[in-house]
Amino acid sequence: MRLSFWCELAWLPPGEVVQGVLVTVEGDRFAEIVPAVPEPPRDAVRLAGLTLPGLANAHSHAFHRALRGVTQAEKGSFWTWRERMYAVAAALDPDSYLTLARAVYAEMALAGITCVGEFHYLHHGPDGVPYGDQNAMGHALVEAARAAGIRISLLDTCYLTGGLGIPLDGVQTRFGDGDAERWAGRAEALRDAYAGAGDVAVGAAVHSVRAVPAEQIPTVADFSHRHATPLHVHVSEQQAENAACVEMYAATPVQLLTERGALGPRSTAVHATHLSDVDLALLGQSGTHVCMCPTTERDLADGVGPARPLFEAGSPITLGSDSHAVIDLFEEARAVELDERLVSGRRGHWTAAELLDAATAAGHASLGFPDAGVLLPGARADLVSVRLDSVRTAGATPATAAEAVVFAASPADVHSVVAGGRRIVTDGRHGLGDVGGLLAAAIREIS
Amino acid sequence: MRLSFWCELAWLPPGEVVQGVLVTVEGDRFAEIVPAVPEPPRDAVRLAGLTLPGLANAHSHAFHRALRGVTQAEKGSFWTWRERMYAVAAALDPDSYLTLARAVYAEMALAGITCVGEFHYLHHGPDGVPYGDQNAMGHALVEAARAAGIRISLLDTCYLTGGLGIPLDGVQTRFGDGDAERWAGRAEALRDAYAGAGDVAVGAAVHSVRAVPAEQIPTVADFSHRHATPLHVHVSEQQAENAACVEMYAATPVQLLTERGALGPRSTAVHATHLSDVDLALLGQSGTHVCMCPTTERDLADGVGPARPLFEAGSPITLGSDSHAVIDLFEEARAVELDERLVSGRRGHWTAAELLDAATAAGHASLGFPDAGVLLPGARADLVSVRLDSVRTAGATPATAAEAVVFAASPADVHSVVAGGRRIVTDGRHGLGDVGGLLAAAIREIS
Repeated sequence: MRLSFWCELAWLPPGEVVQGVLVTVEGDRFAEIVPAVPEPPRDAVRLAGLTLPGLANAHSHAFHRALRGVTQAEKGSFWTWRERMYAVAAALDPDSYLTLARAVYAEMALAGITCVGEFHYLHHGPDGVPYGDQNAMGHALVEAARAAGIRISLLDTCYLTGGLGIPLDGVQTRFGDGDAERWAGRAEALRDAYAGAGDVAVGAAVHSVRAVPAEQIPTVADFSHRHATPLHVHVSEQQAENAACVEMYAATPVQLLTERGALGPRSTAVHATHLSDVDLALLGQSGTHVCMCPTTERDLADGVGPARPLFEAGSPITLGSDSHAVIDLFEEARAVELDERLVSGRRGHWTAAELLDAATAAGHASLGFPDAGVLLPGARADLVSVRLDSVRTAGATPATAAEAVVFAASPADVHSVVAGGRRIVTDGRHGLGDVGGLLAAAIREIS
Repeated sequence: MRLSFWCELAWLPPGEVVQGVLVTVEGDRFAEIVPAVPEPPRDAVRLAGLTLPGLANAHSHAFHRALRGVTQAEKGSFWTWRERMYAVAAALDPDSYLTLARAVYAEMALAGITCVGEFHYLHHGPDGVPYGDQNAMGHALVEAARAAGIRISLLDTCYLTGGLGIPLDGVQTRFGDGDAERWAGRAEALRDAYAGAGDVAVGAAVHSVRAVPAEQIPTVADFSHRHATPLHVHVSEQQAENAACVEMYAATPVQLLTERGALGPRSTAVHATHLSDVDLALLGQSGTHVCMCPTTERDLADGVGPARPLFEAGSPITLGSDSHAVIDLFEEARAVELDERLVSGRRGHWTAAELLDAATAAGHASLGFPDAGVLLPGARADLVSVRLDSVRTAGATPATAAEAVVFAASPADVHSVVAGGRRIVTDGRHGLGDVGGLLAAAIREIS
């Protein structure tokens, strides 16, 4: 089936706003991209405002959406946050997880996200007893993404210890597979289940150096290398994590991951907030992606990571909404720049074009979809259209449209989303209907 | 005329969410506030979600709205910003300023803002020649606020020098009155023009210690004291300002303002970012309000001011959207907490209740409306209703509604606004109609 869309303005490579772009879609791919078409042809859907490639949410914990607002109560210490997060983790089963994740992924779709990287460690039943299908929770996430109409990179996460040398405890037992070999066996089964599926990538994740002993890391890394699939890992989000790692291993988390073969162009270091110069060079020289999650890093008081120096050193930057304090990749994008301004006292670290690249092409590539996030023939047919006539974006011109969107737009300005050739959001409404209602019901069910 | 509104949830003093609140309005004031009314009476307008008192935008430069997006181009250095800002300032006349400010204030109304503090220094015509009515520009701002349906505190700003000991230059000549006596004469005339008007306060402002020589400051302060009206001043936004002030006066800006009688409970220090311990004590002990403008302070790379220590020392905190990089007081409110997390490494500096107080009662008081920003009989009848069923806020309960709104809501979630007893926003639409269109037209006119 051939569909045509005419974009009032579109964001075309190598990073510029072009007026009057006719996009033809065949199946889940772009067939043709024709610039400078002054009027929409009769059979084309007209997309007002600025049309971007699909946005990639490179780091998600879907169930954290149930914590929004809740974890800010009573001045919201870190311990409030963790206690509430574990309570939600304890309450979920495959059915309620499907219900919740479907609503969360639909919220993402409404924000222009066409692919999610789900950092998935909620594997097993209560007390760590596997479900009949040991990947029941993972299947629920895939089903949720499909119902919401977006692609998923299911980053099956190895999570073995509660801290360096500390066994899993309480709800954490649901996260654990015992050792990396058993993790790999389960992850292989998950991968087999989606062999040939164009909308699902099964990747790997090391939760962190706190949760995976050093000698177990290579097994997880091998899975990524063997299947040429993404490998994500939480790195140096907190100073205490670095200190504990250095004490046990005489190496920083980045050094340890380097030694154990876990870094490289298929890998993503999530957060990478507190880095030494050596860490920074190791990440950059290996071409490891770095996923910034600034709204979560603000929320959890993590600090501001050295995004620009990492980028200069060779690490593509990607963006994630992580804990879903908000789901707004425009806010994540501008926060990379704005938080860097706050700590440096200088403006102008990133162009809007660079930040859009992080939100699109770099993000998709880090999730195992290097053929997405760019308006080129043959690429995945994702189109995200942002209003330029709302109170937030009004006044933008073709010359300033990218800046207006990155620095002032809200998900409320996303009026149309096409993902993999299918239109999933029209006039700001998702095909599933009342997504707010779906979220409320799903959260109520587990509260 | 008596109007009734039934609030599904309302934010009542001393700071709690109450279910089923019946609010009766007479003229521009609340007549009765009755909690625990389980069902809406037949003649009452039903307000879904959480209803707050009106929000006060305590620091605005209306014309900066025309710069949104524009100043982020080419990586957006500080000099890009200033050059573009002056170009807009040069282009405005009373007609185009009315057109622009009306649209900007309507954008504020849509975000739940019922009173704006306009820090107004664009007084005169090209080359500094006064208009036929020397307050033509101020009148345009009042007319704009009235057309948008919100109150205005017109902070008539004294702006005499381009820097310490440096004459005004270029477009700055439009800002200057020559000396503070002549400024006061003009400000008195402006005040007389609105004597008895319930929806307008005429206050004073010292642009900054850079723009008003020390010996001229008392004249401006006297205006505030004589009329018991607000006195606002930009303070210590940049380190360079402090250094230059110390070099010339052997005093910091706060010390200088203290010596010249410009601080106290009617005063507001805007920004107050780079303070010594002495500055902090002087602001707190004098009861001076401190207006935080975090989205602008992020944008201009100012840094993070010591909001919590100032509050503990005695300064009420207020919020402003300042340069209108965005107009979103929820974002300003949460940014006070989140930016403090980033620089401190700790969560939990402010409760949602404290941040809502900054956005409402404290803000209105700092603008000369101490009888606004609170749901009590006799207070100004402002009601701002925020959806709790959008994708951003869904999942909130009465126990977490305030946190959900402060930490996750967007202006797109404001569905109804009553200001001074008049409903100006219904179902998310402003009485003026297509505000995005008004903004675009106004900005185009001066570009």
